[in-house]
Amino acid sequence: MSEVKRLTAPVPPGGTIGILGGGQLGRMLSLAAARLGIKTHIYCHDDKAPAFQVADRHTCGEFDDRKSVEAFAESCDAVTFEFENVPAATIELIAPLRPVNPGAKALRFTQDRLEEKTFIQSLGLNTAPFFSVASDADARRSFAALGGPGVLKTRRLGYDGKGQIKVKTVDDTVAAITSFRHAPSVLEAFVDFAFEASIIAARGQDGSIAAYDPPENSHENHILRRSVVPGRLSDGQVQEAKTIAGKIAGALDYVGVLAVELFVGRDGTLLINEIAPRVHNSGHWTLEACAVSQFEQHIRAIAGWPLGDPVRHADAAMENILGDEAADWRRFANRHGALHLYGKSEIRPGRKMGHFTTLAPLTKSPSRS
Amino acid sequence: MSEVKRLTAPVPPGGTIGILGGGQLGRMLSLAAARLGIKTHIYCHDDKAPAFQVADRHTCGEFDDRKSVEAFAESCDAVTFEFENVPAATIELIAPLRPVNPGAKALRFTQDRLEEKTFIQSLGLNTAPFFSVASDADARRSFAALGGPGVLKTRRLGYDGKGQIKVKTVDDTVAAITSFRHAPSVLEAFVDFAFEASIIAARGQDGSIAAYDPPENSHENHILRRSVVPGRLSDGQVQEAKTIAGKIAGALDYVGVLAVELFVGRDGTLLINEIAPRVHNSGHWTLEACAVSQFEQHIRAIAGWPLGDPVRHADAAMENILGDEAADWRRFANRHGALHLYGKSEIRPGRKMGHFTTLAPLTKSPSRS
Repeated sequence: MSEVKRLTAPVPPGGTIGILGGGQLGRMLSLAAARLGIKTHIYCHDDKAPAFQVADRHTCGEFDDRKSVEAFAESCDAVTFEFENVPAATIELIAPLRPVNPGAKALRFTQDRLEEKTFIQSLGLNTAPFFSVASDADARRSFAALGGPGVLKTRRLGYDGKGQIKVKTVDDTVAAITSFRHAPSVLEAFVDFAFEASIIAARGQDGSIAAYDPPENSHENHILRRSVVPGRLSDGQVQEAKTIAGKIAGALDYVGVLAVELFVGRDGTLLINEIAPRVHNSGHWTLEACAVSQFEQHIRAIAGWPLGDPVRHADAAMENILGDEAADWRRFANRHGALHLYGKSEIRPGRKMGHFTTLAPLTKSPSRS
Repeated sequence: MSEVKRLTAPVPPGGTIGILGGGQLGRMLSLAAARLGIKTHIYCHDDKAPAFQVADRHTCGEFDDRKSVEAFAESCDAVTFEFENVPAATIELIAPLRPVNPGAKALRFTQDRLEEKTFIQSLGLNTAPFFSVASDADARRSFAALGGPGVLKTRRLGYDGKGQIKVKTVDDTVAAITSFRHAPSVLEAFVDFAFEASIIAARGQDGSIAAYDPPENSHENHILRRSVVPGRLSDGQVQEAKTIAGKIAGALDYVGVLAVELFVGRDGTLLINEIAPRVHNSGHWTLEACAVSQFEQHIRAIAGWPLGDPVRHADAAMENILGDEAADWRRFANRHGALHLYGKSEIRPGRKMGHFTTLAPLTKSPSRS
């Protein structure tokens, strides 16, 4: 039996959406809400959180501070989050008080790589072969079963390549799980893909789906460097990517924007790398190339508004401004394009400090979902 | 001898720009600054000012509260304003403390219709014939000199048709100046124009000029209803409009964005209606149709950054959402385009509550200045 969802009245202009997390995604969600006349209240433990600078209200607090989380929820008409590692307990605390989306189900399947991959396969979708690893014995058995190079990843709390080690031998694999202090992990086959892509889609409270054209993505040191749309995906792959996103969003009874990271194999197959239950770095180009960006789309979904048309009106290329590159902001200010800087108080190596998007006339008709 | 300007270091990302005034223009300036990683501090007497919701800091205070204005200025790296009726005394208070732009000269020539028109004519540019009126005798003499229908306007503090009365006879004119309690006014010839247009341009601290393509504007009840770009201006008129803006900005030693409202005569001549020393309602379409909007352009100028390229990448049509129309926000949310709602706490008849912009592919090459 499927869960019965309480239908809630939309958050009107003048209402407040609460956002757990105050990084650049929370900041851009807040700016998008502002465009619609919706206020935001940001909850974050960091007193220098970039999103605080642009929100109507903010609370500096920990996710396990029950009183503080409750007061925050009660000040809002609806609540969402900007990253997938919000503790499930925090969401459970808020759920009886205010509508909170994407819900507990989405978090359960995206906070844990093993649950996630098992869920994806249960939908008949493709992932790289994977094995659960928590001991040296698991490591040996899994590597033998894999029969080739792989990547050991912790099941929880990894991002931007953190908690990932490439392994080429059984000994590598044992060393890797040891370096993770035998934290529950997953050994995945190393995928020799042609290129990477992602699909960003929203699901509204009415079950409608709106998917953006999938960008082609390139990474450096496990951090997104560049997203380009249209990428090298064929029309068939574009449609397949949209179908994948719709299937996942439907199965999760999802409300909001999600991103699915894809490996495009040399034989043309799409393998799912991971699901992010949130707006995504590879969708930042939608700010300039679409009438309704991924950020506004997420706010619309959370607020119970109709989704906007995700069609793009231009080709786009987005590149991240990482670490020290942000010190050279004058160079970006002199280039023709849209500069975004995130208001972070400190430059750190590899840190996402901003991004820069350029548009170009459409080279082929954008896809319609 | 021209005034020597102190060159100031640019406001870097992380710096703060102060904005006098907290309406929708201040709000959109604040959002544009945020995109560049620049914080804003809004100063406004209205404790429900729309810009407060999106700014890093705000001060609720009066313009003549010396202590409050000084504390505000000292918290900022540079100061600007969102509307032309800031008292000159407030700007004079701030000027010794922080760079404030556009400066006192721009305010002097735009706060007073008589000074403004005299200034425009001194540059060899066209205005409708006008006469200074402060008494019944002035009214009679001026109407006789005009020899046809006109509009009596108060010299100061008019906007959106407030402080304006159409006059067809001498008696109308005397009645009009009496209804203004003989406040210093200007009688202008009624212009039978083909259509209205505007030119929005920025001047940087280095004296560089960046002008947007001029939109064609239509008004209802003296309030802007719609701006469309490209409008019916010929290529020659587009260039002439840009020349006009550059001349005015140069003569005012201007820093920031200004708008010049134009009447396009049936014979093709461009008459200047008025100068707004600020971002302008008829430039809101630049948010979607240009890489750098009028709001970002103004922030760049105030912050001492290089101006962005004002070229547009699309045709655009912007319509205002006025008064009660905002109650029907669902209708706009369902249309394809960019919806902007200003977060005003109350709907009032004719009040600017938001706007809606649609883009279309370029129908002709955008002009390059």
